[in-house]
Amino acid sequence: MTAEDSSKEEIMSATFDALCEHGYANLTMQSIADEFDKSKSLIHYHYDSKDDLLAAFMDHLLENFVEMVTGCGGQDPVEELRRMADIVVVGADDGNDANDFHTALLGLRAQAPYDEKLRDQLARNDARIRELIADIVRDGQEQGQFDESVDPEEFAALFRSAIEGAQAHGVVLGDAAPTDEVMAAVDDLLVNRLLVGGEGGEADGEEGGE
Amino acid sequence: MTAEDSSKEEIMSATFDALCEHGYANLTMQSIADEFDKSKSLIHYHYDSKDDLLAAFMDHLLENFVEMVTGCGGQDPVEELRRMADIVVVGADDGNDANDFHTALLGLRAQAPYDEKLRDQLARNDARIRELIADIVRDGQEQGQFDESVDPEEFAALFRSAIEGAQAHGVVLGDAAPTDEVMAAVDDLLVNRLLVGGEGGEADGEEGGE
Repeated sequence: MTAEDSSKEEIMSATFDALCEHGYANLTMQSIADEFDKSKSLIHYHYDSKDDLLAAFMDHLLENFVEMVTGCGGQDPVEELRRMADIVVVGADDGNDANDFHTALLGLRAQAPYDEKLRDQLARNDARIRELIADIVRDGQEQGQFDESVDPEEFAALFRSAIEGAQAHGVVLGDAAPTDEVMAAVDDLLVNRLLVGGEGGEADGEEGGE
Repeated sequence: MTAEDSSKEEIMSATFDALCEHGYANLTMQSIADEFDKSKSLIHYHYDSKDDLLAAFMDHLLENFVEMVTGCGGQDPVEELRRMADIVVVGADDGNDANDFHTALLGLRAQAPYDEKLRDQLARNDARIRELIADIVRDGQEQGQFDESVDPEEFAALFRSAIEGAQAHGVVLGDAAPTDEVMAAVDDLLVNRLLVGGEGGEADGEEGGE
């Protein structure tokens, strides 16, 4: 990694920390600089404005997310979708407080109706993540593992809505959010709708609860 | 309807209009009074504070929602779930701008992490809606229409996350939101996971898209 790459990486990390600490509404260049070990001028050297920095941060997030889901490639498609759900709903196990970060993300999304640039970036990121899901579904279908009658794009739209909706619920409802139930139902969806031959059968664990 | 009920109904309607017009962040008693044909003192007569009024408004919303979904009772469970998805994702066909209202709802939800009373109310409403979904699933199972291996509570958590996530996407992404794909996938979920004998088969329409 070059010194420049390393500085940028540290600025991204400082942005993440500042977002968790202050939320999206109160994020300033100064709050990011406060989390950054080097000079504030280095942040201004790399990024002209807060918008500029945030755009880079969101690209960075997306890249990391795709990497975390797909790993080194050649993975099991069901496992990739499970990992994605886990990262989005429960949070990446990276020692940071997922709840603070998810709260900042919700604040950012709630701002999108009033900020066209932000909306465009969120729309690009969303399209990229849905494409990733659809690609995983297609891979599973090509490997004969997934039911051919599932439409990859439609499945991707539902899967993405469900896990992002559950992430928002975690933030909005706190302990009252039904996170375990959602994760169990995601598993049921993967096993009983996506996997060939898994339909309608006994998945793994509790069935027909009352 | 008594005169008091009628006043309350009109205050609820004024609150809805004010929320659509100003969003949650800028909602004031005055902005609600501006949408109300009668005297502002009548609002203060019925509700001590904005919080008080908003709590009543959210109860009112929930009641209306349950009514719209279940109608006069004795309905087809699949139709009830379809109608619920349609109301949440696309919006009630009541002549109001669903997008403005969904934007206000997102703003309200984004505030919940900072407002315990609001969070408690959202948690109560959420639990009630999930219970409604689970009840519909149980009805379908009792009628022999729905697969017994589906866990009603888990399904409810996923279904609720998916449709509320899709509603948020509609607001956040605007025209770029994959609303049609989500609605098609909801249908696929109902037909191919929930309905007995529907599993893995050809649902209705486009299959195996690329």
